[in-house]
Amino acid sequence: MRILLTVAYRGSNYCGWQWQENGPSIQQELETALEKALGHFVRVTGASRTDAGVHALCQRAQFDTDARIPPERYPFVLNRFLPPDIRVTHGQQVEDDFHARFMADRKIYTYRIYNAPVASALHYDTTAHVPVRLDEKKMHDAVQCIVGTHDFAAFVASGGSQKTTVRTIYSAKVERNGALITFTVCGNAFLYNMVRIIAGTLIYIGQGKLPPECLLQALESGSRLDLGITAPAHGLELTHVGYREEYRILP
Amino acid sequence: MRILLTVAYRGSNYCGWQWQENGPSIQQELETALEKALGHFVRVTGASRTDAGVHALCQRAQFDTDARIPPERYPFVLNRFLPPDIRVTHGQQVEDDFHARFMADRKIYTYRIYNAPVASALHYDTTAHVPVRLDEKKMHDAVQCIVGTHDFAAFVASGGSQKTTVRTIYSAKVERNGALITFTVCGNAFLYNMVRIIAGTLIYIGQGKLPPECLLQALESGSRLDLGITAPAHGLELTHVGYREEYRILP
Repeated sequence: MRILLTVAYRGSNYCGWQWQENGPSIQQELETALEKALGHFVRVTGASRTDAGVHALCQRAQFDTDARIPPERYPFVLNRFLPPDIRVTHGQQVEDDFHARFMADRKIYTYRIYNAPVASALHYDTTAHVPVRLDEKKMHDAVQCIVGTHDFAAFVASGGSQKTTVRTIYSAKVERNGALITFTVCGNAFLYNMVRIIAGTLIYIGQGKLPPECLLQALESGSRLDLGITAPAHGLELTHVGYREEYRILP
Repeated sequence: MRILLTVAYRGSNYCGWQWQENGPSIQQELETALEKALGHFVRVTGASRTDAGVHALCQRAQFDTDARIPPERYPFVLNRFLPPDIRVTHGQQVEDDFHARFMADRKIYTYRIYNAPVASALHYDTTAHVPVRLDEKKMHDAVQCIVGTHDFAAFVASGGSQKTTVRTIYSAKVERNGALITFTVCGNAFLYNMVRIIAGTLIYIGQGKLPPECLLQALESGSRLDLGITAPAHGLELTHVGYREEYRILP
C-alpha cells in the first residue's frame, strides 16, 4: 500500500530535504527511521525539495510498504526514531497511483522577517534579520501584481530545470505583528528559489532600494536583473502542500 | 559609570544564567564578550538567575566600567562577540546605586505549551509538549486565585533561600491560539521554580488530574503536595523585568 506522511521540521541542522554528500538531510533521517520501524529500507518521495536551512510545517512524503501498521499510527511509530526537530504529524493511506509531488496543486510558503535594530535571539534561525525599518504596507501592495497566471521566468535561480516557467499564484500578503513581518504566498507550484527571490525583492521595496513596480516589470521583461536579492533560506517555511479534489484518502 | 543591558536569549544551549562548572552560561558568554569589547574583565549582575533551558526576551544585566562607549552602542559592540542565540537589545546608563536585581519590582514570565498529539518540530525547544487536550478556559479561571498578595510557601522548590515567601501577583492569564497555549504571569517577584510549579499545576488542572481549587488550597495549606509537577524548563521565558518609577535613566 502507498502511505502519505505529513512531516514538520526545523531545517537549521540539515542540508535540505534531499540526500546530500555534505551532511544529513530530512529525507535521510526519515528513511532511517522507516527502516528501523519497518525492518527494511524504503525510498521516500517528498512533495517539495526544500533547501538547506528551510523549514516545513506541512511537507508531504510518500512510500510503499506491505507493513501492517495502521496508517494513522505512523506518527507515533516513526517519531520514536526521529530527532526532535523532525516530526511526522500525520499518516494516511492513498491510492496506488497517487504521487506526492506531481499531484500537489497548492502550496503555501511563509517567509519571516525580523525587522528590528537587533536580530531575534529566540528566533534567529527561523527569521531573516532586516535592521532597516521596512514599509510593510508598500510591500503588501507591490506584491499583489504576482497574483494570477504569469510567466515567472525572471523569478528563477539558475540551475532550475523546469519545462515551463508559467505558474499561478492564488494569493500573496505581507503583514506586520510587532517586529515580525510575514510574507505568505499560495500558488499551484513554485520555481526554484522563487519565493526567496520575491521575498528579497520585497525587502528591497520595503526599504526603498527598488520601486514597487519592479515586480510587474520583471514579469514583463523576464529579467532576473529587475529584481532584488535572493532572501536567506532560514526565513522560509513550507507551510502547506495541498492536493486536488479527486485524490481520495483510502479507509 | 553603571550600565544596564537588556539581553534576549534562547536558553537551549546553556546551563542557565549563572556561571556553572558543567557548561557555558549566559553570564559567561556576556562577560567574555564584554572583556573583548572593553579590554578588561567586568563582573555582570543579572536581574534573574534563569535555569538551564529557560529563555529570555528581556533579561537585565548591569556592570560598572570607565569605558567611553556610548551606552546605546552596547548592542552593536557586544553582539559581534556573542553567539546568535544571545542578543543584547538595549544599553543605557543608570545611577551608581542602581541594582538590576534588588530594584526590579515587576517581572513577566511566559510559559508555552504545545497542545497537540504530536510535538512541535519547529518549536520543540521553546514549548512543553502536552498531547492530551487541555481545557484552557478552566486553567485561566483556576489561576485567577493567585492574583494579589499571598504567602506562596507551597509554590517553591526545595533549595530556595528566600527570607519570605510572600509575593504579589498583578495578573495571570491562560490563552489558546491553535495548538499553542500560553500562560502569562506578572508579579513583583517570584520564588525559585514558582512559575514552573504553577504551569505544571495548570497542566494537571487542564486535563482534569487535579481540581481547579487545588491552587487556592495550596495557598492556604502551604503544602507543595497540593500542587502538580514542576513543568519543564524549556517552556519558560522571562519576558520582562521592570523597575520602579524613581529609577532614572541618566543621559
